[in-house]
Amino acid sequence: MPWFEDIKIGSRLELGSHTFTAEEIIAYARKYDPQYFHVDEEAAKAGPFGGLTASGWHTSATWMKLMIATRQDAKEPPDADGRVPPSGGPSPGFLDMKWPVPVRPGDTISYSSEVIEKIDMKTRPEWGIVRSRNIGVNQRGETVLSFIGQGLVQRRQARQK
Amino acid sequence: MPWFEDIKIGSRLELGSHTFTAEEIIAYARKYDPQYFHVDEEAAKAGPFGGLTASGWHTSATWMKLMIATRQDAKEPPDADGRVPPSGGPSPGFLDMKWPVPVRPGDTISYSSEVIEKIDMKTRPEWGIVRSRNIGVNQRGETVLSFIGQGLVQRRQARQK
Repeated sequence: MPWFEDIKIGSRLELGSHTFTAEEIIAYARKYDPQYFHVDEEAAKAGPFGGLTASGWHTSATWMKLMIATRQDAKEPPDADGRVPPSGGPSPGFLDMKWPVPVRPGDTISYSSEVIEKIDMKTRPEWGIVRSRNIGVNQRGETVLSFIGQGLVQRRQARQK
Repeated sequence: MPWFEDIKIGSRLELGSHTFTAEEIIAYARKYDPQYFHVDEEAAKAGPFGGLTASGWHTSATWMKLMIATRQDAKEPPDADGRVPPSGGPSPGFLDMKWPVPVRPGDTISYSSEVIEKIDMKTRPEWGIVRSRNIGVNQRGETVLSFIGQGLVQRRQARQK
């Protein structure tokens, strides 16, 4: 990660894409979300979407996976003073998760993340919160996932209280 | 599930509990959230929580797993008219996911769900949206997860437009 001070509102990361197979959809859902329209191709045909669809929790966790892979691809160089920029910090949670269109077997979802807010923290002067709008779009250009993510990022210099 | 008409605001489900092991925390995070404080017990000691913690996505997916198991435990009997109450429908997403306290190896999280709102849908007169406040509490009584969930539930009778 860059230091908190170096993150720009409006900056955007392309996180890459993932193609969801029926096998993977069923395997995730069997473990965490075993509703018939996520685990049973035959029964799902009579279900709310007329076929198998991925658990929204699976679509969302895949965003996380690609975000971490992208961050690791983009290791920052040391600062002029030789300090190594931080790895990402924890998240206090996120806002407004939407799954407006189902993800079906064979769909390829492309994920991206845009910084929308930077927040100073009262309790942790050495960190800030970065908010981002994250979306996943399928091969037809339909948004299948959107949410506002939050992550703590270390500051180069602690904020003066 | 009960029919939409039969769901009462204020009704509460205990979803049971789950004990998170280090092995399981690491296995989930390796696949979906491989940050060092979720996958490496040694490195995590120098991290933001001083030790290994579960990915919030893992804590959240475990809520889903227990919710489905609870619903299947509580199959409704047929109505007086012989109709079988519906299985749960899909979710349009959820609101305000908070992970205020980390989940560590050995923690036992107890989950519950309380109905807080019922929403008529303009576009789908045969369904309604049920909103619930969901929480996960550890063995010390600390809330480790809270969010507002949403799910579509079938109506016994379609709403008149």
